[in-house]
Amino acid sequence: MSGCPYFEKRHLLFKNKPPADEDEDASQAGVNNASKGGIIYGDYLQLDKVITAQVLQSEVKGNKIHDEHLFIVTHQAYELWFKQILFELDSVREIFVSGHVRDERNMLKVNTRIHRIVMIFRLLVDQFAVLETMTALDFFDFREYLSPASGFQSLQFRLLENKIGVPDNLRVPYNRRHYRDNFKGQQSEMLLSAEQEPTLLKLVEEWLERTPGLEKTEKMADGEEKEELRADQAKQKDIFTSLFDEKHHDHLVSKGERRFSYKALQGALMIYFYREEPRFQVPFQLLTSLMDIDTLMTKWRYNHVCMVHRMIGSKAGTGGSSGYQYLRSTVSDRYKVFVDLFNLATFLVPRHWVPKLNPNVHTFLYTAECCDSSYCSSEESD
Amino acid sequence: MSGCPYFEKRHLLFKNKPPADEDEDASQAGVNNASKGGIIYGDYLQLDKVITAQVLQSEVKGNKIHDEHLFIVTHQAYELWFKQILFELDSVREIFVSGHVRDERNMLKVNTRIHRIVMIFRLLVDQFAVLETMTALDFFDFREYLSPASGFQSLQFRLLENKIGVPDNLRVPYNRRHYRDNFKGQQSEMLLSAEQEPTLLKLVEEWLERTPGLEKTEKMADGEEKEELRADQAKQKDIFTSLFDEKHHDHLVSKGERRFSYKALQGALMIYFYREEPRFQVPFQLLTSLMDIDTLMTKWRYNHVCMVHRMIGSKAGTGGSSGYQYLRSTVSDRYKVFVDLFNLATFLVPRHWVPKLNPNVHTFLYTAECCDSSYCSSEESD
Amino acid sequence: MSGCPYFEKRHLLFKNKPPADEDEDASQAGVNNASKGGIIYGDYLQLDKVITAQVLQSEVKGNKIHDEHLFIVTHQAYELWFKQILFELDSVREIFVSGHVRDERNMLKVNTRIHRIVMIFRLLVDQFAVLETMTALDFFDFREYLSPASGFQSLQFRLLENKIGVPDNLRVPYNRRHYRDNFKGQQSEMLLSAEQEPTLLKLVEEWLERTPGLEKTEKMADGEEKEELRADQAKQKDIFTSLFDEKHHDHLVSKGERRFSYKALQGALMIYFYREEPRFQVPFQLLTSLMDIDTLMTKWRYNHVCMVHRMIGSKAGTGGSSGYQYLRSTVSDRYKVFVDLFNLATFLVPRHWVPKLNPNVHTFLYTAECCDSSYCSSEESD
Amino acid sequence: MSGCPYFEKRHLLFKNKPPADEDEDASQAGVNNASKGGIIYGDYLQLDKVITAQVLQSEVKGNKIHDEHLFIVTHQAYELWFKQILFELDSVREIFVSGHVRDERNMLKVNTRIHRIVMIFRLLVDQFAVLETMTALDFFDFREYLSPASGFQSLQFRLLENKIGVPDNLRVPYNRRHYRDNFKGQQSEMLLSAEQEPTLLKLVEEWLERTPGLEKTEKMADGEEKEELRADQAKQKDIFTSLFDEKHHDHLVSKGERRFSYKALQGALMIYFYREEPRFQVPFQLLTSLMDIDTLMTKWRYNHVCMVHRMIGSKAGTGGSSGYQYLRSTVSDRYKVFVDLFNLATFLVPRHWVPKLNPNVHTFLYTAECCDSSYCSSEESD
Repeated sequence: MSGCPYFEKRHLLFKNKPPADEDEDASQAGVNNASKGGIIYGDYLQLDKVITAQVLQSEVKGNKIHDEHLFIVTHQAYELWFKQILFELDSVREIFVSGHVRDERNMLKVNTRIHRIVMIFRLLVDQFAVLETMTALDFFDFREYLSPASGFQSLQFRLLENKIGVPDNLRVPYNRRHYRDNFKGQQSEMLLSAEQEPTLLKLVEEWLERTPGLEKTEKMADGEEKEELRADQAKQKDIFTSLFDEKHHDHLVSKGERRFSYKALQGALMIYFYREEPRFQVPFQLLTSLMDIDTLMTKWRYNHVCMVHRMIGSKAGTGGSSGYQYLRSTVSDRYKVFVDLFNLATFLVPRHWVPKLNPNVHTFLYTAECCDSSYCSSEESD
Repeated sequence: MSGCPYFEKRHLLFKNKPPADEDEDASQAGVNNASKGGIIYGDYLQLDKVITAQVLQSEVKGNKIHDEHLFIVTHQAYELWFKQILFELDSVREIFVSGHVRDERNMLKVNTRIHRIVMIFRLLVDQFAVLETMTALDFFDFREYLSPASGFQSLQFRLLENKIGVPDNLRVPYNRRHYRDNFKGQQSEMLLSAEQEPTLLKLVEEWLERTPGLEKTEKMADGEEKEELRADQAKQKDIFTSLFDEKHHDHLVSKGERRFSYKALQGALMIYFYREEPRFQVPFQLLTSLMDIDTLMTKWRYNHVCMVHRMIGSKAGTGGSSGYQYLRSTVSDRYKVFVDLFNLATFLVPRHWVPKLNPNVHTFLYTAECCDSSYCSSEESD
Repeated sequence: MSGCPYFEKRHLLFKNKPPADEDEDASQAGVNNASKGGIIYGDYLQLDKVITAQVLQSEVKGNKIHDEHLFIVTHQAYELWFKQILFELDSVREIFVSGHVRDERNMLKVNTRIHRIVMIFRLLVDQFAVLETMTALDFFDFREYLSPASGFQSLQFRLLENKIGVPDNLRVPYNRRHYRDNFKGQQSEMLLSAEQEPTLLKLVEEWLERTPGLEKTEKMADGEEKEELRADQAKQKDIFTSLFDEKHHDHLVSKGERRFSYKALQGALMIYFYREEPRFQVPFQLLTSLMDIDTLMTKWRYNHVCMVHRMIGSKAGTGGSSGYQYLRSTVSDRYKVFVDLFNLATFLVPRHWVPKLNPNVHTFLYTAECCDSSYCSSEESD
Repeated sequence: MSGCPYFEKRHLLFKNKPPADEDEDASQAGVNNASKGGIIYGDYLQLDKVITAQVLQSEVKGNKIHDEHLFIVTHQAYELWFKQILFELDSVREIFVSGHVRDERNMLKVNTRIHRIVMIFRLLVDQFAVLETMTALDFFDFREYLSPASGFQSLQFRLLENKIGVPDNLRVPYNRRHYRDNFKGQQSEMLLSAEQEPTLLKLVEEWLERTPGLEKTEKMADGEEKEELRADQAKQKDIFTSLFDEKHHDHLVSKGERRFSYKALQGALMIYFYREEPRFQVPFQLLTSLMDIDTLMTKWRYNHVCMVHRMIGSKAGTGGSSGYQYLRSTVSDRYKVFVDLFNLATFLVPRHWVPKLNPNVHTFLYTAECCDSSYCSSEESD
């Protein structure tokens, strides 16, 4: 341990008394840490940028309207959080793409970050309550100054949809135009690129297709040669087959009513049925969190619709209008990326029908994959 | 109406069909509004500043830690909302300071904006749930890079406290130093200036001292000369006097246990007792919202403490440490600015003891003050 | 004050020291209040009924499933809160029906109680997060035991819809049957009766039709005889007329796209435009709260849909199924009772177009109605 | 599969079309399920008990006060949820006590149920917002009728504290009496019994003491005989020893500042350091959820204090009073059962100091315990 003075210093401390935060103790003794250099709060957070970015268009145009400030800050808060969600999402996709997900130690990161996205969306759904302290009349006072800015133009939200896996062909057109045509140059390219990169949907699909126990079942049973086991396996296969006719499945996929491959869906059902197996507990949580994200995004859309209804009315029945009607049309299962995970509920069978696991598989499921090779150990650079 | 082409245009529209949003109809017909010029979403929100302001110190120091991004974004979101709160607070204080509050039409603005602060704080209390997805271990990985930055250095939060009315002399010292000594130059001056400007507490106090009905009671009763009324007034006076011995009150004020003047407290009690009078309904709401702000700020502090406990431990029993212990000490009634409004609950009397209002006062209370003079009509330009 | 020993006792206390809660002081001195008789906590809340009402059907049928307990408790909590909402709603309707609403002192009660309903619904929307800790697989384990019980059979929720004003003819049929046919005997009668009683919608409509300033405008202007005023009034009338062609309005009402009468809508717009008038501040809040209720009920429905999707799948595309599809169809503006208040946003005009108030009306608006007659003073016994 | 007609029926269905819910399809065809017998909604939930249990004492005493209804319903909702929490807590304790926790498949149940308690407490913290729509003045109107009922008498909340592990000797006395003396007969016995049963704290402690890898380290290393490994192990042992001097630890335990045994604390730190190991991911979540419960209970207490302050004032400075002051004293780390898990943050070391796991242990950690013996398979009857 020599050569590690920092540790030794702490080490000594621990001997004497429960460790305290030296820095703070020091400053109690009269030393002003801030004067020693280093970064201070406002610089660290770049507040000179963040809290100077509120320019009211109404003020610029000579008719300052108080409530425009709230409008700006609320949207900036949304964009800040969208950035955070994209950051988490990109890191999770990277873990899948790089193959690091095969080292199951990385599932902690995956799960934690996906869960974090859930928690952020929960906040964002609630955040509408703040903007709703602005009335339609207050909004009307500055609305004209905003044209043609529109929330639809939020690049980050569109990227988010693409990266999770909202497919291009299921999107509702926006004012009769392809959604991407509403963005220019670099932004349009970023959107296209996000469509072409592996989406979270696609990556989870590949991961589900590798669900342990799925493909090995028969081989392992061969060695066993027990009648009972064979029967159980036949039963399991039977259930899967009866639930998912492959042809019918492909037909639904072509219509956009299913998104996962046949095999991935089997993997998901495998995890559902054997969710108590130690190796499946964390994957099961992941599937649940993915449904949470879908649900919260759709609640976010719906709360957005409710707010817009309040701000600009619905013009119900007049037809042709966008705004409220456009937004409403996006509160749809078409935008639920992991809709298959919800619909699996249709295929559940009573717990006692689920065949016991082949003991070999059972054991296999208890052993997590992990790799300690140099490839893996250099895994995450963040 | 000639000379107002915009109106006429709309006017015609209304005749033909229920009004629709022309801009959006137009774009359905193939016109791309965005290409016509004007501001677009990202520029309006200055996203080039807001979402490029996330620089991870751990990355700068060559050891990028994923969770630092969340840490930064969460604090930036807090600061964004603090800015909004300050914006609302300043505008409310301006209405009071300028005397516009005497035109009771402005009470709608006051109440709405104070209520908005309440809603923002409600969000901020919940926002800790997002940061709590980071564990102590994740925090530890980048904590060293932050020194000496500290949340204590949030200028906006200290300004907020000052402007609401946390008094200098009741503040817990920070590392044995006056809180203001932890800020330099312009920031220190801004804090001092915010202490010296009229605080919300002070402004509300003055407003309460002018509570209608308070001073006029006796004069009006003179004209009445009815025994019953005299008795009722005597009773009212008696209640007030018995509740609030002026000398004792002043003693408590000197100890910091009461904040409002004797007369302001009477005004508040007057509003409590006669809250159903049309003229007092909105003032009563205002008093309730002020307690909401106090309560939510204290909950915010407490949730902050809980998060810090989780992140760096409490070092319970070791003494001398700041961090957790410092924050805990601020979760105190000393920091409740409107503590008198809570404590009035101690002085309540059964509803049937509250004397009927003198009919003259009664009528008076139904009639709101308002001024249409040029002074007042030029009131608030926002 | 003699003859009121309780008061005198307190009165004396106040002289000596700030009043403390005698009962608690007494028990500090060793007296056990609980032994003195009176009611104790558990009896007061009838916990012998409330927390013994959890009988798991799965247990009754010999196959106890743990999660059924959560299912029961969650629904009971919903029903408890529905009871509270009905209690508030009935009391508000009573204030309107009895005419007590004409004494504007009662607006405090109306507003407070409507706001309380808002706060309860906000909790109920969040409450789904608890039930969502149960997965589809857990639900499947006991679902069969529940048949034919269904949330649709919640009498209180249907009563609530009726009393607020969801009209019979706009309801989505349930399994091709009239909703009321799914209830028997006394329950069916209660529902019918709730349809026939004055709904909150109807009562608010009548109240809006009496909006002060609405009918008096012309009469008052007659006395003034100023050109400017005449012009302003003409302008105001013009706006109203242009916005709301009466014939077109009646057509929309017949189709169920508008709910309020022509005159009530004018009253609402009057309150919108002149919301800062002291007399309109509280009415404006009421209109806002009514929109809140609509919004939250629709969010409640939508969150319910999301939960059901998760529990039993959507069976999207199969057609004919109820459950998810039925619930989804109720997340509709047809179920938004106060949809007109939202749609008024379509009719807003810039603030500076809104004509100044006739000074006479202005004065009138500063003076709240109130009645001190014996009729009014005996008003609400609660 | 013959002999299982239900399955065959479904099986056939699946062949023809995606499975639909037969029952609902049937009722679309005109069959009224409800008339076929079985249980209906209101009976299932025993609403005849739950929503008839609201008796207002003010009404009984002849002075009905509207807001007492809210007071009752809110408390009943709290008690309902307390019942649910106790139900989950008992089931988790049973899994630990029975030894089923050794089959790691049962960790899914443990984690899910503990997480459910977290979600319920999150709701309960928010629930105060509803009760806070009642003002101090409204409360005063019926408060006298409640005596001597007090929230302190909530048997379920005291049981909850006991079962989680709030120790008898750290409790704040209530009005100078032992908390249990405020309960009589059977209730007092239930409380005593809950103190004597294994608490969640105790059960988690025992489980932590068995943390895999903890005891085996040295033995396994013997076989390895690699210098590097020895060094790493020495380092690990060194860290543990330096962090936790056993004597000092025992001293802190005797003062109530630590709750876990020396060995359990080592287990917890082991899980913290190696939380990414597949076998530790779920245990790490469990530790996090336990801190969540502690945090939320303390937030619940604090929100309770805030509400009481608002309802009855603080009587600050008078001393001797209970109510507000009593409640405030319970918002303390003394009531944080898992305070050690928080304080472990004090003992963190940089990630790169944490020694690599001995490969043997590593492998060992990937293999979950599980038992398929008849004993285990009959494990949980619910």
